[in-house]
Amino acid sequence: MEHESFTITGYDPERVVQDGNRFLLANGYLGIRGTVEEADRSSLPAVTLAGVYDQYQDRWREPVNAPIGLFAKLILNGKVMGLGNAEAHSHVFSIDYRNAVLTRETDFGPVVFRSERIASLAEPHLLTASLTLSFNTDGEAVLLTGISTDLWDINGPHLFDFHNTTGEILLCESITGEKKIPVAVTQSVSYEHSAEEMFQITGEGVFRRIGFTVKAGEKITFSIFSAVYTGLDVQEPAKQAERLCAISKAAGYSECKRAHITEWENIWKQCRIDLGGNEDAALALMASQFYLNSIAPRHADNLSIPARGLSGQTYKGAVFWDSEIFLLPMFLYTQPQIAASLLRYRIDTLPGARKKAKEYGYRGAFYAWESQEGGTEGCTNFNVVDVFTHRPVRTYFRDKQIHISGDIAYALWEYYRVTGDRLLLEQGGAEVILECARFYLSRASARLDCDAIDYADVIGPDEYHERVRNNAFTNQMVRFCMENALRLKEVFSDKPEQFEALLDRLDYRTDWELLVKALGRIRRPNIRHGVIEQFDGYFDLEDCRLETVRSRLVNPREYWGGDHGVAGTTQIIKQADVIALLALFPENYSDEDVAANWMYYEPRTEHGSSLSACMYALTACRIGREELAWKYFCDTASIDLRGGGKQWAGDIYIGGTHPAANGGAWMIAVLGFAGLSVSNGSIELRPHLPVQIKRLQFPITQGNKHYLITVTHEGWKTEEL
Amino acid sequence: MEHESFTITGYDPERVVQDGNRFLLANGYLGIRGTVEEADRSSLPAVTLAGVYDQYQDRWREPVNAPIGLFAKLILNGKVMGLGNAEAHSHVFSIDYRNAVLTRETDFGPVVFRSERIASLAEPHLLTASLTLSFNTDGEAVLLTGISTDLWDINGPHLFDFHNTTGEILLCESITGEKKIPVAVTQSVSYEHSAEEMFQITGEGVFRRIGFTVKAGEKITFSIFSAVYTGLDVQEPAKQAERLCAISKAAGYSECKRAHITEWENIWKQCRIDLGGNEDAALALMASQFYLNSIAPRHADNLSIPARGLSGQTYKGAVFWDSEIFLLPMFLYTQPQIAASLLRYRIDTLPGARKKAKEYGYRGAFYAWESQEGGTEGCTNFNVVDVFTHRPVRTYFRDKQIHISGDIAYALWEYYRVTGDRLLLEQGGAEVILECARFYLSRASARLDCDAIDYADVIGPDEYHERVRNNAFTNQMVRFCMENALRLKEVFSDKPEQFEALLDRLDYRTDWELLVKALGRIRRPNIRHGVIEQFDGYFDLEDCRLETVRSRLVNPREYWGGDHGVAGTTQIIKQADVIALLALFPENYSDEDVAANWMYYEPRTEHGSSLSACMYALTACRIGREELAWKYFCDTASIDLRGGGKQWAGDIYIGGTHPAANGGAWMIAVLGFAGLSVSNGSIELRPHLPVQIKRLQFPITQGNKHYLITVTHEGWKTEEL
Repeated sequence: MEHESFTITGYDPERVVQDGNRFLLANGYLGIRGTVEEADRSSLPAVTLAGVYDQYQDRWREPVNAPIGLFAKLILNGKVMGLGNAEAHSHVFSIDYRNAVLTRETDFGPVVFRSERIASLAEPHLLTASLTLSFNTDGEAVLLTGISTDLWDINGPHLFDFHNTTGEILLCESITGEKKIPVAVTQSVSYEHSAEEMFQITGEGVFRRIGFTVKAGEKITFSIFSAVYTGLDVQEPAKQAERLCAISKAAGYSECKRAHITEWENIWKQCRIDLGGNEDAALALMASQFYLNSIAPRHADNLSIPARGLSGQTYKGAVFWDSEIFLLPMFLYTQPQIAASLLRYRIDTLPGARKKAKEYGYRGAFYAWESQEGGTEGCTNFNVVDVFTHRPVRTYFRDKQIHISGDIAYALWEYYRVTGDRLLLEQGGAEVILECARFYLSRASARLDCDAIDYADVIGPDEYHERVRNNAFTNQMVRFCMENALRLKEVFSDKPEQFEALLDRLDYRTDWELLVKALGRIRRPNIRHGVIEQFDGYFDLEDCRLETVRSRLVNPREYWGGDHGVAGTTQIIKQADVIALLALFPENYSDEDVAANWMYYEPRTEHGSSLSACMYALTACRIGREELAWKYFCDTASIDLRGGGKQWAGDIYIGGTHPAANGGAWMIAVLGFAGLSVSNGSIELRPHLPVQIKRLQFPITQGNKHYLITVTHEGWKTEEL
Repeated sequence: MEHESFTITGYDPERVVQDGNRFLLANGYLGIRGTVEEADRSSLPAVTLAGVYDQYQDRWREPVNAPIGLFAKLILNGKVMGLGNAEAHSHVFSIDYRNAVLTRETDFGPVVFRSERIASLAEPHLLTASLTLSFNTDGEAVLLTGISTDLWDINGPHLFDFHNTTGEILLCESITGEKKIPVAVTQSVSYEHSAEEMFQITGEGVFRRIGFTVKAGEKITFSIFSAVYTGLDVQEPAKQAERLCAISKAAGYSECKRAHITEWENIWKQCRIDLGGNEDAALALMASQFYLNSIAPRHADNLSIPARGLSGQTYKGAVFWDSEIFLLPMFLYTQPQIAASLLRYRIDTLPGARKKAKEYGYRGAFYAWESQEGGTEGCTNFNVVDVFTHRPVRTYFRDKQIHISGDIAYALWEYYRVTGDRLLLEQGGAEVILECARFYLSRASARLDCDAIDYADVIGPDEYHERVRNNAFTNQMVRFCMENALRLKEVFSDKPEQFEALLDRLDYRTDWELLVKALGRIRRPNIRHGVIEQFDGYFDLEDCRLETVRSRLVNPREYWGGDHGVAGTTQIIKQADVIALLALFPENYSDEDVAANWMYYEPRTEHGSSLSACMYALTACRIGREELAWKYFCDTASIDLRGGGKQWAGDIYIGGTHPAANGGAWMIAVLGFAGLSVSNGSIELRPHLPVQIKRLQFPITQGNKHYLITVTHEGWKTEEL
C-alpha cells in the first residue's frame, strides 16, 4: 500500500546524512544506517551495536560501530559504478515499512544496480542483502565486496587489533579499546554466474574481488550474508559468526527474508495502528511505529533503547528518561515483554544508580541521566560547546536532573498498574522504587524554621532553566515515588514477611518512618490564575515572545539554555514541563487546570526537544482542542520522515532517529485521539478524533487478552481477538 | 616632605580618567575628581555626593553628581588658555597629602595658570580654590567661571528643572529625577584686580564673565567659593548654600584653607603611620591613608563608604562588605567614631535588609550586596555584559552572596571586642546580629536523613565560582554570627530584662531554641593535607595554572567567572577566600594550617579584586614569610598611585579609587607587620617587619587612651600619649 513505504528519488550529497537515519534498518541488536553499499566514511555509514560501549582516550563514551559486512562496490570495464564516482541517471531509495526491507536502485547507464537489504528480525546477528546487476553493455566486471573497517566514529576509533581471515567466509576480528570486548564480523556471498574470486586485505577491511564477464541484457544476482557477534553475546564470537554466515548462506536470501517478514508480521499484528482519512498522517504514523519497533530489544530481556535508537552514536548511545516516559507506553499496551525489558534494564543497573547517588553524597538510587551499560553515567559536566569561544560549557544535566529516578519509579508503577502484573516489582522493581524514594529523602532540603521540604537546585524537563528550585514536575515525581514506595506494603500484603525481609535487607526501617513524615511536606507549586508556576520565581522572569528571544541570537547555533543562553533568563522554555506533568498525572488536574496551563505555556515553548509536541497534543485532546492536537501529532509522527528535529546543540551534532517522538505518536493516537485508559483491567475510551481522521483502529494487549479497538466519529467498539 | 605629596608632570589625554581618581579631593560629604578647572564632560569631571542616589529610567541607580562650582576657563586675547585648546609648555598636577591640597600649574606661554583647591574638611559643604594667573603678555583677558551643569554620568541624567540665578552669588538649583531631592550649588568669586563682570546662563550652567586688562609681568589672583547642599541635608538648601558661600568669601581663601588643614592635622595625629626605610612604600602608604581618610563620613554619624569611595559613580556608589571587613579596622583602632558611623549605617538600614530577606522568602536580615540609601539593594541580576553577544549576563551576587549579613555581624562584634564599648550593640547592633542569625536559620538547608546543615547555592568571596555549596568562609561567618547572637545574653547579663524584652519584641523565643540546636550542625569544610576545601567539590575542579586559564581567553575583556568564564570550572579563584577566612579568624587556625592553605591557594588566585592582596599579606606575616607579605603590601598600598586595579568587568567600567585596598594597606602595616592585636583592652605585638622597613610608628586609640607604637627590627615600644 502507498502509505506503507517511503521512497526518495534522486541523489543529493547534502541529504546523505539525513537519509542515513530515514532509511535505517534495525532489529534491536544492531542498526545499519541507510547508506549505499559502496559508501565510504564520508557518508557516515554505520552498523551500530546495541549496548556495546567504548571510550577512546578522554573523549565521550559512545556505542561501538561494527565493521560493515554488506560493503559492495561494482567496477565495470575499469570504472567504479558508485554514487559520487559515476553519473547516476536515476537513483531511488525505498523502504517498505511493513516488511522492513530497504531497496535501492541506481541506473548508472551501463548497469542498473539494484539491492534489497534486511536487518533480520528472525536472526538479530544477521544482515543480508541481495544485489541484482542488470547490464546494458558487454564487458569485464568486478564486484569488490567484503567487510569494511573504514568506520565513521564521532569519538572513536573504538576497534583495535584487527585480524582478518579470508576463505569462503571472510572473517574480521577486532577488540574494543577500553574493555577489550571481541567483535567478530563474517561475510559470505552466493551467486550462480561463473566468476573468479581473489582476496584483498587492506587497511580498510577484508574483501573478495569477484571478477566476471558480462553481456548486455544480462542480469546477475549476488546474495550477501554477514553475521555480527561480540564477546558480550557469546564465548566465541568468531565461531558463531562463521556458523551463522554458513547456515544463512545455505538457507539462501529468500528464506532469510521470509523468516524476517514473518517476524515483522507478528509485530504489526500486535501494534499496528490503522489510521483512515489522511494518507500523509497514515504513512507518518506507520513510519513512526516502524522506527520504534525496529530498535526494540527482542533478543534480550534487560536492554533499553538509546535516545537516538540505533541510528549512530549521537547522545553517546545512552538511555534517557525517554525510555520510561515516551517509549514505554506503546510497548506496555501492545508488547509488554519489551516494556519489561526496558524496565529490567533499570532494575539491573540499580548498582550504577546507587554508585552515582553516593558520588554526589546522597543515598539510594540516582539514575544516570545518560545511562550506558551497567548504568554507567555517560553524561559529562560539559555537554555544550560555546559557539563564540569554542570552549565547552558547564551544564548541569548530569547532577541536577533528579527527576530521572522518579521517572523510572513512575514507569515501574505504570507497568504494574496497566498490566496488573506484579512480577517486575517482585524481581527488583520494588527495590528500585524504594531506593529512588530513599534518594529523594536524602536529596531533600528542609528548612529549620518551617515545615516545607524543598527540592532546590534541580533541572526539570525544560533544560533551558538550570538549577531551579521546586520544579513542579520534579516535586510531583518525588511525591509519587515516595507514595508508591509506601504503597508497596499493600501490593505485597499477601506476602508480608517477604516485603519485611526486603526492608530489612535494605536497612530501610528508619527511612520508612522518614518517608511517612516527609510525604506531606514536599512543596506544592505556586498557582496563579490556575497556572502552575514551573518553578519558584518562574513568573518573575522576563515574559517575552518566542520571536523576541530568537531575535537576540547572535549566532543561529547558539545554545539557548543556562544563564548565558537567550532563553535562560526569560519565560521561554525548551519543552513541555508543567504540561508533561498534566499529561502524566491526568487524574490530578481538572480540564480547567489543563486548559489554563496549556494556553499559558504553549506560546512560551520553543519545542527545542522532540519530547515536547507529544505532551502538548495529549493535553490538547484532553481539553477538546483536537485541531491543536492534530498539528502537534503531525509534527511528532513525521519527524523522522521529514528528517526534522534539531541537528546541532552548540557545536555538537545531535541528529538521528527520534524514538521518543515515535513513541509519542503512538501515545497521541491511542491515548489522545482514541482516549484509551485502562484501570483495574477495564478499558475506557474518551475519543477526541480530529476531523482529519475518519477511523482509527489498533490492537492492544491486556494481560492475556488481545483487543482490537475501532474509533470513528460515530462511536467506538472493542473486540476481543 | 618628599613622601607626603605626589606629582605628575606633563599632559596626556590618555591619563585623564586615571588622574581624576589619583587627584581626587574629598571630605566625606563630597568628592571632586582631579580634573582641571576648564575640563568639559570628556574628562569625566564630577562632584559626587555621598549618600544621594537617583535612578534614571530603568538604568542602574547611582550616586548623584552635583553641578561643578569650581569651573573656570581663561580666555586671553580671544584664545582659550585651556588644556586641549592651547599648547601647554608644562603642566603639573600635585597633591599634598598632609594638607589635602591639590595644586595645578600649567604654563601656556602667554600665561601660567596656577590653582590650588580644597574640599574643605572644616566645612564639608564647601569647595574652594585659589587661581593665580601670571601673565607674560599684555592683553584683554576673560575668566569665565561659574557652575557647570555639563555633567558626566554613567547612568544619568539625574538632575532636572534647573533654575539658575545670577548676582554676587551664582545659584544653580535643580532636583533629582527619582526622589525629587533638591540640589543647590552656589558660587562666588573674590579678587582685587579691577574688572567688569557680566553673567551668562546657558544649557551648560550659570557663569560670570570677568573681563580685565593685563600687562606682562602681572600676577592676578581669584578666590572661588562654592557651596553644595541638598534637600537631604537641610530644609532650604539654596539658602544654606548662599549663606555658606557668603561667609566663606568673607573669611577668605586663606582662612578656609587654614581651618581645613587644622582638621587634617588632627586626622593625621590620630592615624598617621610613619614608615621608615623605603620612600616609595612610605609615599604609597601615606597616599593610601589619605584616600581613605578623605572619604570617611565625618559630617554624619550613620553613613558608610562606597566601594569606590567618592571617586564617581562606579559600582553604583554602593556600600559593599568592603566597609565592614577592609575599611573598618583602621577606623576602629584610630578613629572609632567613624567605625561607629559605618556600623550605624547598617543598624539604620536593617529594615532594608529585612525587606530583602522577605523578598527571597526568608526571615531576618539579608543585607544588600550593594547597599544604597536606606539599605536599598543596588545590585541587579545582571552585573556583567558578555563581550561576544553584548547581552547582559545573569550573575548571582545579589541573591547568593549571603556572607554579607555575617560580615556585618562580625564587624559589630569586632567593634565591641576592640573598643570594649557596648553602646552600638545597645543601640540596635544586638538586633542586627539577632536578625542576621535568624536569616541564616531560615536560609539553612537541612537533610532529612543526616544531621548536617548545609548552606547550598551560595557565592563566597571568590565570585568566580557561583552557586556553590558549603563555602567554608560563608559557613564560618554563619556559625560566628549564630554564636554571637547567643553570646549576647552574656553581654547583657547585667540587664537581663532589657535583653529579654528585645527577644520578645523580635518574637525570637522559638528561633533562639533553633539557634542553640543548629549551631553545632553547620557543615565543617573538607580538609585535605591541611588544606581547607573552598567549597564542596572545589578539589574536583580542573587544577590548572593561572597562565593556562588566561590563555583560554578569546577576548581580553571577557568576564572570568560563572559557568561560562574561563575560571569558573577550574580551581583558579578571583580573590582570597579561604585565606580571608584564616585572616579574619586567626585564633581558629594554627600556623601550619595557614602555611598549608597559603601555599595551596596563592598560585591559584588571580587577584582579580583589590580585596585579595591584603588577606594574602596578613596571612604571609602570620607564617613568617615577610618577603611575600611585602610584595602584596606594595601592590595594595600603591594601587591608587599607580592607577592600578581592573578597569573593566566585561563591558562595564569599574575604575575609581580603592578604599578597601587603602584600608588593607593599614591592616597589613599595623595588624601584619607590627602584628598588633587587642584583647580585653591589652595590646599585644608580634612584629613581622620586612627587611625593607626599618621602623614603623603609628598611633592607636583604645577606649579613652591613645598610644604611640614604634616597631623596629630590634624591638618595639608602646607609649601612652
